[in-house]
Amino acid sequence: MTVHSDPLEIGAAEYLLRRERVFSALQQRGLGAYCVFGPTRVAYLSGFFFSPTERPVALVLTAAGEVHALLPRLEVTHFQQQCPELPNLEIYAEYPGGGEGRHPLTLLQGLLTRLGQTGRVGADLDGYEHRWGYRGPRLSELLGWPVQADVALIDDLRAIKSAAETALMREACRWGDRAHRLMQDMVEVGAQELLVSHGASLQATREMLAELGDRYVPKSREGMPANAMFIRGANTAHPHGLHQAGAVTQGDVLVTGAYGVVGGYESELERTMIVGEPDARFVQYFGAMMAAQQAGFDALRPGRTCAEAERDVRRFIRDELGMDDLVRHHTGHAFGLEGHEHPFLDLDDHSVIEPGMVFSIEPGLYVPKFAGFRHSDTVLVTEHGSERLSLYPRELEALTVSPV
Amino acid sequence: MTVHSDPLEIGAAEYLLRRERVFSALQQRGLGAYCVFGPTRVAYLSGFFFSPTERPVALVLTAAGEVHALLPRLEVTHFQQQCPELPNLEIYAEYPGGGEGRHPLTLLQGLLTRLGQTGRVGADLDGYEHRWGYRGPRLSELLGWPVQADVALIDDLRAIKSAAETALMREACRWGDRAHRLMQDMVEVGAQELLVSHGASLQATREMLAELGDRYVPKSREGMPANAMFIRGANTAHPHGLHQAGAVTQGDVLVTGAYGVVGGYESELERTMIVGEPDARFVQYFGAMMAAQQAGFDALRPGRTCAEAERDVRRFIRDELGMDDLVRHHTGHAFGLEGHEHPFLDLDDHSVIEPGMVFSIEPGLYVPKFAGFRHSDTVLVTEHGSERLSLYPRELEALTVSPV
Repeated sequence: MTVHSDPLEIGAAEYLLRRERVFSALQQRGLGAYCVFGPTRVAYLSGFFFSPTERPVALVLTAAGEVHALLPRLEVTHFQQQCPELPNLEIYAEYPGGGEGRHPLTLLQGLLTRLGQTGRVGADLDGYEHRWGYRGPRLSELLGWPVQADVALIDDLRAIKSAAETALMREACRWGDRAHRLMQDMVEVGAQELLVSHGASLQATREMLAELGDRYVPKSREGMPANAMFIRGANTAHPHGLHQAGAVTQGDVLVTGAYGVVGGYESELERTMIVGEPDARFVQYFGAMMAAQQAGFDALRPGRTCAEAERDVRRFIRDELGMDDLVRHHTGHAFGLEGHEHPFLDLDDHSVIEPGMVFSIEPGLYVPKFAGFRHSDTVLVTEHGSERLSLYPRELEALTVSPV
Repeated sequence: MTVHSDPLEIGAAEYLLRRERVFSALQQRGLGAYCVFGPTRVAYLSGFFFSPTERPVALVLTAAGEVHALLPRLEVTHFQQQCPELPNLEIYAEYPGGGEGRHPLTLLQGLLTRLGQTGRVGADLDGYEHRWGYRGPRLSELLGWPVQADVALIDDLRAIKSAAETALMREACRWGDRAHRLMQDMVEVGAQELLVSHGASLQATREMLAELGDRYVPKSREGMPANAMFIRGANTAHPHGLHQAGAVTQGDVLVTGAYGVVGGYESELERTMIVGEPDARFVQYFGAMMAAQQAGFDALRPGRTCAEAERDVRRFIRDELGMDDLVRHHTGHAFGLEGHEHPFLDLDDHSVIEPGMVFSIEPGLYVPKFAGFRHSDTVLVTEHGSERLSLYPRELEALTVSPV
């Protein structure tokens, strides 16, 4: 149980701190201004959560500490309500032009010129992404100046979670665990995967809203804040199998996924389950997967690189399990505001693991035409090791479903 | 009732036809090869529906009629299952490198070189989008050759729906309508907006799966195929208001949204509703919005431009209603595989409206601090006019909720 009654969201002071880190980075890099087009990065720096569409939204931060926002008219009141401390708005009528006869990004050209920033401009992306029918020039084409496009300036900050962020992710884990529990309780032979998944998500959401009350502040327009789903049978041999129509049958292997969303931050939880008594082959692969995940937990320590951690896990799977041929993906990924974020526990990612990073630990074994075996947990890197934030049982006995 | 028993999805012959149109376009433009990075465009051309992540997926189509796919190892079996007629695969271990010591996009460089296409390359986007922690070079930087990046080559094809596509959208409309009906029946004073929305979506999904059985083929990993939601009160004055915690109260204005997803194709339906007896102010704005939407239906005719249709609606709102100051967005957008697609019913979109295009018609009036007024319908452009595919009642009497 949490004891605070504050809203479960990031406060204004932390948003200010994030922007100050960007101002400092701009000064260090000799950049006069930085344009932010990624919707998650906009939310990270301002607290403005919105439905991304073909209408470009951007922030412009300057080395002098100013913040300007590019907005379509339909988001103006919404932005003002969420970000009263950011009054500098560049408002366009509509995309593609709404009768103004100019592309919305041309407002950025005018703004940067007025700010005197005509040669030292950076950006996360060189223009708005081509989302939902959006068409437009690259920012550098439009400006006629080079633009230093680099998502790392912000995303490297995002990789280290603050105490407030990890508190939200811890709470999200609690609701992911709860949604998974409700789903597991509903799985039986004949149950439809879509209905069980969404029914459990709805029930978990109901409990979450009842318990958190006003402390829960939705940050999106769609989806539930507590979610669980599963795929089943041979479909689990695809690491990212899509949903299938049809019902659970005796002997099905299930690979599940559950998460909460609190203050915009997600958790991750995945389990491999079996409907009915497991046979020897299942038990063998399940045990191997459990051992590989434990190798992942053990490998995640601050001060080493992601590649070093991944090398430990891959060595274990190859040398101890002899199952290297069943691997289809690396051990895990950072995450937070998005389901996957940089860095990755991958042989070619040489980022240093630092306290405050949050990773999924999910080495998987995929047996063609039989099944996939993967647990995933949310793990916080601490000063001396790591802490698992998702607390759902991992053992086979706890994940065996009675068929009736 | 539908009478066919075929799966509700696009067949292999239509995917082939789409690719042949791209092959022809490449020949006409003098391009030797075209790289497709947008996940929806990949699905449109191949039928490969997948969960987009930081792991790049791309198709390469050549003027000679070849198709190659760039895939992460974890999607290979999934791709082979969905696209058995596309055997040419370029497989990388993992993003960012999985131990291969090279960025996944470098495989495209090798492929294009082998194909002899080293100077006449086009693409929808100049590289993979920066989704979920992905970092990488632009394709043109990597190749060292110019790349003609242009989403229009494919998206202009997507704008004209085939008979099979409109049949799927018609069926999607049926389930959007049904989800909305179930939601409306659940709205009452004290009801939580999130629980009513997701409860109705679940019930509609349950009915849909029961009726369609094996004909329904899921194309995504998350979300329900029949959905309804609403926002309420002064929050409706934001055209894209996010969900809020809390309960429906007497006098609340609701702005709803409902859709089905069938074979990957979406529908759109939005309604303005009132809880309890409407007052004179509500009735006035509701009537104005209804008239503006009728102007939109009337304006949508083949052979004119999107801008001409929009001009009709804006002129009506300005001259007949005197409410131009309450407009926050244009009249509508095309859609299909994505919720918004090119073109847009906008004063600056000069695309010609053609039979087979499907638009939302949703002029909105937003009264600050009071409420928003917007209906949206799915409308198919026909040879001589248009046909509304979403059939939910539009009239105030049918959208007034008894408060108890």
